[in-house]
Amino acid sequence: MAIINENFLKLQAGYLFPEIGRRRRDFEAKNPRVKVISLGIGDVTQPLAAAVVEAMKKAVGEMGRIDTFRGYDDGGVGYEFLRKAIIENDFESRGVRVEPDEVFVSDGGKCDTGNIQEIFGRDNIIAVTDPVYPVYVDSNVMAGRTGAADKKGRYERIVYMPCTAENDFVPELPREPVDIIYLCFPNNPTGAVASKEILAKWVDFARDNKAIILFDAAYEAFISDADIPHSIYEIDGAKEAAIEFRSFSKTAGFTGVRCAFTVVPKQLKAHTKDGRAVEVNPLWHRRHGTKFTGASYISQAGAAAVYTSEGKKQCRQIIEIYMNNAALICESLGKLGYKVYGGVNAPYVWMKTPDGLGSWDFFDRLLQKANVVGTPGAGFGPAGEGYFRLTAFAKPDDVKEAMERFAAV
Amino acid sequence: MAIINENFLKLQAGYLFPEIGRRRRDFEAKNPRVKVISLGIGDVTQPLAAAVVEAMKKAVGEMGRIDTFRGYDDGGVGYEFLRKAIIENDFESRGVRVEPDEVFVSDGGKCDTGNIQEIFGRDNIIAVTDPVYPVYVDSNVMAGRTGAADKKGRYERIVYMPCTAENDFVPELPREPVDIIYLCFPNNPTGAVASKEILAKWVDFARDNKAIILFDAAYEAFISDADIPHSIYEIDGAKEAAIEFRSFSKTAGFTGVRCAFTVVPKQLKAHTKDGRAVEVNPLWHRRHGTKFTGASYISQAGAAAVYTSEGKKQCRQIIEIYMNNAALICESLGKLGYKVYGGVNAPYVWMKTPDGLGSWDFFDRLLQKANVVGTPGAGFGPAGEGYFRLTAFAKPDDVKEAMERFAAV
Repeated sequence: MAIINENFLKLQAGYLFPEIGRRRRDFEAKNPRVKVISLGIGDVTQPLAAAVVEAMKKAVGEMGRIDTFRGYDDGGVGYEFLRKAIIENDFESRGVRVEPDEVFVSDGGKCDTGNIQEIFGRDNIIAVTDPVYPVYVDSNVMAGRTGAADKKGRYERIVYMPCTAENDFVPELPREPVDIIYLCFPNNPTGAVASKEILAKWVDFARDNKAIILFDAAYEAFISDADIPHSIYEIDGAKEAAIEFRSFSKTAGFTGVRCAFTVVPKQLKAHTKDGRAVEVNPLWHRRHGTKFTGASYISQAGAAAVYTSEGKKQCRQIIEIYMNNAALICESLGKLGYKVYGGVNAPYVWMKTPDGLGSWDFFDRLLQKANVVGTPGAGFGPAGEGYFRLTAFAKPDDVKEAMERFAAV
Repeated sequence: MAIINENFLKLQAGYLFPEIGRRRRDFEAKNPRVKVISLGIGDVTQPLAAAVVEAMKKAVGEMGRIDTFRGYDDGGVGYEFLRKAIIENDFESRGVRVEPDEVFVSDGGKCDTGNIQEIFGRDNIIAVTDPVYPVYVDSNVMAGRTGAADKKGRYERIVYMPCTAENDFVPELPREPVDIIYLCFPNNPTGAVASKEILAKWVDFARDNKAIILFDAAYEAFISDADIPHSIYEIDGAKEAAIEFRSFSKTAGFTGVRCAFTVVPKQLKAHTKDGRAVEVNPLWHRRHGTKFTGASYISQAGAAAVYTSEGKKQCRQIIEIYMNNAALICESLGKLGYKVYGGVNAPYVWMKTPDGLGSWDFFDRLLQKANVVGTPGAGFGPAGEGYFRLTAFAKPDDVKEAMERFAAV
């Protein structure tokens, strides 16, 4: 008799975004003439950079001719031309040395941050911020690393590190023992960033405790302050303490193209239960090689074009459109008396709900009264209750209109 | 202290194809002037069909304009246009009814067949054929569903079903209890196919035992005999017994493009440990939504073009090139006195090694003497020892030359 993975039954109702989609569709079905503006799900709206389009058209053409056709990406870790461009532009330019066999190209940051836990044992204690990107938690629930959820949705055996206005949305070091720590800066959902000093504190903590940091840097391209690190490897010793996740989804509008990468340093070690040190890089290599076949050649060709001088300029212009949106949201809501956070080094604006409203209540009120969709903070964890996330990824005219509607209600 | 998943340490040395690549590179380094012909790894060589190229170029163009740009594939299960084309052409045309929410589009069959085990509990007994596509086994080893490997490379707690010339490479029903059964027809590596009667026997067995069949139909496009089923759902009751995996990799040369799909029928149920029936479809939906973000829009647009009348004709012509290769291999080796199997309804030719040679010994001899790379049967499991796999995916001139070299040595 085939038995299900009963850990799936512990998962809380629907993944956040499907639930938002459901409520939106219900509203639209009842109000077919109303134009709903979404500042909710973090999907981009600007078209791909011209350099990327050109490179992908060329790649498609190559796939149609026998002498330039490409089959499997050998080894599935990404073409050398892309890994080289990544290393030079994302790391060497910031004084960080990364080797080609430390870079694993993939089809998405969600896949990588969801799958990475597989190479670690079931008994590790996971630490996450609260609020948090749900994938970190749900992938560990599915793997059986947690107990059941309590009424607030917190799973037993996960260490939650609250991030609220009181600590500037930067977590304190945990007081209890933890083995694997998920950090995301610039943060989704709060838009908070971490200085070099803060990251150094975490790297030291991880090294002292033989813990591993899973560092999600999917939003590094939105950093505007010169002294905020883009990579955790800008911190001394971080290659012995952290895996880093990057993505082209937000950097270059690749949510529909699919390309991302993960850096697993060769210096990084985890341990067997009896204390023997084991290199982590070959474990991820084996996982990647066994259950993944490489990102599309066309997507990889497009990703490489992001690093050309034209590509860089064009992607930068797109990011500026989004960051202007973020500035407009912060300014408009500030004027209306809302407390807003983030939005300066990140495409996310995190706001306090008015009148002590619950996150989902504010979601429903905003949808009904202003016909604007946002993301309830509580969807990211109990410490997100009373907060609300707005994203800067909508079209500028829509953001403007949404802000006018906010002002009107 | 971060602890590794110690199940990874049970895995046998290197995944098969990297090992083949290593031996080939070693040989080429020592013999730089020799042209090695590969009939080894199952990668295609013909360029994409013109209809696919055209559709992907159009899709890339759409991604460059704000009014036609597409971000996330909503829900990550595949665009409706593709799922509709799949259902009409792959299933309705053969009298099989599949609903849109039973089809999950992905970026590869390896990913799907590797990841599917996650939704099942750790205590299930897995049954695989021997020889077998290594991903089925390795993904279960990583998940802790097996004990250690013995000297022959067989893992404890996996039920192996030998497939040899003696049983026409079709496994017998297991005599011991099994919960999840991996079947692949047309088979990789043996090229064997299963008749309706054989599949019906397996469907009945699964239903009688509340077991689930994981049916890999990645090579169905190569079936030439009219009475061989292309889908397990052509068998009555199979929707209550099986998940089916399909891929565009070999059907349409998508190994570098990445698109595949999995069918999880809504009728299919597995059980909790205490015997409660649970629908499997929502479990896979949840897994897919949590750890995957959808296949590239460009790849999906290309996949949909495979089902247009031009696309069908062009892909059929490509498949005929490969099947002519297979016929040439079978005929040439047959004339030389080799025992060959498969190659009629499948792109794989499975041959007995001569002189009682071991598979890897024959690999090395073939590489040294004929400068031809194949795949040692033992790489697919101990019952593959003494066999050797040749694929039909090389360029026709290379196949011809390889056969001449076989004849000369």
